[in-house]
Amino acid sequence: MVESWSFLDTAESNFRPLVVIELAKGTKEETIEWFTKRIVDKKANGGAQLLIKPLVTENGVENIYLVGASHLRLLLGAETVGLVKECSDNSMRTFTYSSRKTFKHFADDNHNFLTMAECQYIIKHELENLRAKDEKMIPGYPQAKLYPGKSIVRRLLTSGILVQIFPLHDREELKKLCHSWYGRVKIGYQPLDDIRCYFGETIALYFGFLEYFTFALIPMAVIGIPYYMFAWEDYDKYVMFATFNLLWSTVILEVWKRICAILTYRWGTLLMKRQFEEPRPGFHGVLGINPVTGREEPVYSSIKRQLRIYLVSLPFVCLCLYFSLYVMMIYFDLEQWALDYHKENESNFSSLMLYVPSIIYAVVIEIMNRIYRYAAEFLTSWENHRLESSYQNHLILKVLVFNFLNCFASLFYIAFVLFDMKLLRQSLATLLITSQILNQFAESLLPYWLQKRYNRRMKKRMCSKKTDTDLSLAEQVNMEKEMGTYLGTFDDYLELFLQFGYVSLFSCVYPLAAVFAVLNNITEIYSDALKMCRVYKRPFAEPTANIGVWQLAFETMSVISVVTNCILIGMSPEVDALFPDSKMDLVLTVALVEHLLLAIKFIMAFVIPDKPRDIQMKLAKLEFESLEALKQQVRMQLHFLLIHH
Amino acid sequence: MVESWSFLDTAESNFRPLVVIELAKGTKEETIEWFTKRIVDKKANGGAQLLIKPLVTENGVENIYLVGASHLRLLLGAETVGLVKECSDNSMRTFTYSSRKTFKHFADDNHNFLTMAECQYIIKHELENLRAKDEKMIPGYPQAKLYPGKSIVRRLLTSGILVQIFPLHDREELKKLCHSWYGRVKIGYQPLDDIRCYFGETIALYFGFLEYFTFALIPMAVIGIPYYMFAWEDYDKYVMFATFNLLWSTVILEVWKRICAILTYRWGTLLMKRQFEEPRPGFHGVLGINPVTGREEPVYSSIKRQLRIYLVSLPFVCLCLYFSLYVMMIYFDLEQWALDYHKENESNFSSLMLYVPSIIYAVVIEIMNRIYRYAAEFLTSWENHRLESSYQNHLILKVLVFNFLNCFASLFYIAFVLFDMKLLRQSLATLLITSQILNQFAESLLPYWLQKRYNRRMKKRMCSKKTDTDLSLAEQVNMEKEMGTYLGTFDDYLELFLQFGYVSLFSCVYPLAAVFAVLNNITEIYSDALKMCRVYKRPFAEPTANIGVWQLAFETMSVISVVTNCILIGMSPEVDALFPDSKMDLVLTVALVEHLLLAIKFIMAFVIPDKPRDIQMKLAKLEFESLEALKQQVRMQLHFLLIHH
Repeated sequence: MVESWSFLDTAESNFRPLVVIELAKGTKEETIEWFTKRIVDKKANGGAQLLIKPLVTENGVENIYLVGASHLRLLLGAETVGLVKECSDNSMRTFTYSSRKTFKHFADDNHNFLTMAECQYIIKHELENLRAKDEKMIPGYPQAKLYPGKSIVRRLLTSGILVQIFPLHDREELKKLCHSWYGRVKIGYQPLDDIRCYFGETIALYFGFLEYFTFALIPMAVIGIPYYMFAWEDYDKYVMFATFNLLWSTVILEVWKRICAILTYRWGTLLMKRQFEEPRPGFHGVLGINPVTGREEPVYSSIKRQLRIYLVSLPFVCLCLYFSLYVMMIYFDLEQWALDYHKENESNFSSLMLYVPSIIYAVVIEIMNRIYRYAAEFLTSWENHRLESSYQNHLILKVLVFNFLNCFASLFYIAFVLFDMKLLRQSLATLLITSQILNQFAESLLPYWLQKRYNRRMKKRMCSKKTDTDLSLAEQVNMEKEMGTYLGTFDDYLELFLQFGYVSLFSCVYPLAAVFAVLNNITEIYSDALKMCRVYKRPFAEPTANIGVWQLAFETMSVISVVTNCILIGMSPEVDALFPDSKMDLVLTVALVEHLLLAIKFIMAFVIPDKPRDIQMKLAKLEFESLEALKQQVRMQLHFLLIHH
Repeated sequence: MVESWSFLDTAESNFRPLVVIELAKGTKEETIEWFTKRIVDKKANGGAQLLIKPLVTENGVENIYLVGASHLRLLLGAETVGLVKECSDNSMRTFTYSSRKTFKHFADDNHNFLTMAECQYIIKHELENLRAKDEKMIPGYPQAKLYPGKSIVRRLLTSGILVQIFPLHDREELKKLCHSWYGRVKIGYQPLDDIRCYFGETIALYFGFLEYFTFALIPMAVIGIPYYMFAWEDYDKYVMFATFNLLWSTVILEVWKRICAILTYRWGTLLMKRQFEEPRPGFHGVLGINPVTGREEPVYSSIKRQLRIYLVSLPFVCLCLYFSLYVMMIYFDLEQWALDYHKENESNFSSLMLYVPSIIYAVVIEIMNRIYRYAAEFLTSWENHRLESSYQNHLILKVLVFNFLNCFASLFYIAFVLFDMKLLRQSLATLLITSQILNQFAESLLPYWLQKRYNRRMKKRMCSKKTDTDLSLAEQVNMEKEMGTYLGTFDDYLELFLQFGYVSLFSCVYPLAAVFAVLNNITEIYSDALKMCRVYKRPFAEPTANIGVWQLAFETMSVISVVTNCILIGMSPEVDALFPDSKMDLVLTVALVEHLLLAIKFIMAFVIPDKPRDIQMKLAKLEFESLEALKQQVRMQLHFLLIHH
């Protein structure tokens, strides 16, 4: 069992800083001493058994600490968090320290067995699981209450003593990654495995989805181009295009599940057991006994939460939706007024006035989105969800519904109330292209400018100091701690979701949408990559097995688009002309086609397996092995019992 | 580890017969000797380590064997199959022999810890897992090939040497169960836990579903009665009734999932890990290596199977559906002809002639159903599915689609082609009541008569012999081996499924359907219970956690019923009168309402959790404990490693 492990690697000489802890200026000495002691203390004494070192800069100690861990400690941490790694026989297995020799690339002196992102994730996990024993409060801060089992780091964060914890960039690795990712203009796939090693699975999966989605849009774009070039206006062709689109969007969402399974199987997260979720930092309640863990922790009645959701949040969201529709109606009135004004007294001023309503509406929408986002965050936080995942789901749902309405309500109104297909096509094109240009500016040009400024600042510093390794580390930490924090993939997915809406909801009136989407996404990959590597602090890796609630959101959108496209085609004069005698027959035919398409969609989603056959096989093999192991155990037991009689 | 287990209980004196094996008459001695030796042989030598005893009747040995096992053997078998039992602290846990003391009601001398059904399930499992070692064939039968790892019992069955294996009834228990189940007229719940102990989870869950479904129909029936009594013909009321029905049917299907979770949690099957499935008996292929198990077994290309499904089975099913529709059209022609004939020459003969088409159609449908069932079984077997579950799913799908069309096509035709609501109501009532009377006869009166005959036969035998315990066992075995085999819950669920169709598809034209369904189901419970206890051989218990594909079938039916009911209401003259100016508005309103109802259905299905909160808690607690155990293990390891340095 005990191998030739050298515990010398816990010595300072081998210390590799992984995570930075920034404490508030003026934090009391006794608090710092207590906190650092808890971090380095032995597991058996309730510590985290990590290594910690204050960062020394030319101004002296600045309440910034670097955290690392010995190689052995990291390996045992990998077992605790349940990392899944590849074995020598190419199968994926949960890593355990005792079976470490069976894993691919494992060697006692190979410190690259765990990627840096994994090491940082382990340290984050260990820090967050550093729990109060019998302390009633944080030493030096009597108002920061503790109870047995409370996560110390979370209490330090909520009471403002701990400013932030973030993982350090690895300059060497980042340079390599940047080069292979966006450093050269090339046609080809992104280095997803490298991205995953550096940024973790959640971010790699977002880029994987972005890339997949772009490739999936190409067939639609290719079919869409001739419609624009030859100005095909006959509805036979539009019907064909829309039908292809509807089935295609089902297929791509199903195939994505399979590709996602392939990626996450390779990364080990498909097999990784879900960790037991801790209460989220903002969660509060009366101290009670958690019925699941049997530990003392804040408890909040689920009925109270349900009441808050259904009696406050739901009406508020409905009110906001109503208000958004009301604003839209005002916009249409204003537009009508501007048109009338332009007709009556035609002048340069009046033709300029034509654009005013659209600009006002765009600005108002942007303001409403932002205010609503704050309100949604406040409300969801007030609902007091125990788990971060539940908080996220409720927030995403609220924001999604509002954004959907804000983006598409005017288009729905034009299509199904005004029945104006020309205006619909024009508005769709304007909205799509404007939003893409704005996004490109906010995500690509702005970061580029920020990077330039950052480079200048860095160069200035580098010139004034000697380029010592130790000093450059202090510089690096000081620079990184000022960088913005990446708030997760939410906004990136939301952008893709709305884009998918523009492409699919009205695909039969504007086939060119897919072309713009493809063009946008190609630059989006580069600008998002730049953002991740240069603009933001390195985020902690988050293991994940799928894109979660977004899969559902995209699927819902594709169901809605079946309905809208069927109605649009039914409303077209060309289809109308096919049923000269009876409007009834037309509507009934459209309804029948719609139901058929929906039925085909659901059958397709049911028939296409969510995991490719070889992944299914590998999962079955793992299950079979664990069952066999159990049987073997019973067999041994039986043998043993019989021998002793 | 080794306790005061008395291995004397393996002696004949304690032998309790559980399962009967009947070999073909004239089976060679060497085969019998080899087979019985394998059954009693030690696990370490590849045997099943069970007890076996030939049944001695007055005619001598009849190639019938009784199989039992020692108490210890059964406990270890329970660990192998992964039984989940209740612990002393009321939580459900997977049984292991080493933790046996922590389980409720466990005592070394309590032989009732495992129910008889569980013991029989364990023995069946052990017998089926008796595998060939290096035998190339069954001794004495060179044509019955074996390969290492092949289940011996399955080969014996397919080569006809083994006639049947079935579990024995327990006369005492059965009498008690019959009494509490259907022996007295009472209002109250069925003794589901007792049924489960005696017949296993699959059958108990069927009866649980039947009972739940009956209770769930009562509100519909209660609301339906005044419609009949007061002959409410205004469509406002029908619309209300139909809307209630649609939402109610969604609610009951969602609530059933929760009740199912409560039942199967209590029975332990919700937590039971799925066993690794063996190839089904009829599966054949070229000997190859199974990529999952790494063992040698027949392998059959999945592409070939897909080709057979999509190129042969699918077209065949479509052809049958077309043929069934064709027959229906002939029936409507015949009916028209009979009506015309009756009008032209009105006589007694001609009014009798009016019934002829219906009778012919009913008979033809019955014949078609039977022929199709054979064809479906043949085709599905020819598709060569590796797993029994996959075979069952494909068979159920085939039979379900055909039965759905056969039962409802004529009603759809009357409703949506002939637009004849009067005729629809009449046909619906006729079909529903006729099918219920026929079923009641086939399931209740016939079994009752069979039981009477059986009782007479039994009494005759009892009088002619002395009532020795040993002899009565032989009598019991001889009687039971002649009883019919219960072929599973398929037909019972199918009957309920079609009934659900009658109640929900056209609920707005015939509200009384639910009343008939409730009345039918009350007697159905009694007749099915009688059938299980008296008519059939005792079936082997089958652990199951839900009603499987039937949940999906019922949900699909409830989606279809939203569409049909909306169309029916839209077609009614009263609703028509609300839109005097424009037919279009009517159709659009109906379509809108339908989409809204469908959306509400899906949202409801999404919002209502599938498991009640306390079951979720208990599952979370188990998961938490296993994670904690893992962490504890890592902590110990770390401690150990540090001490040794």
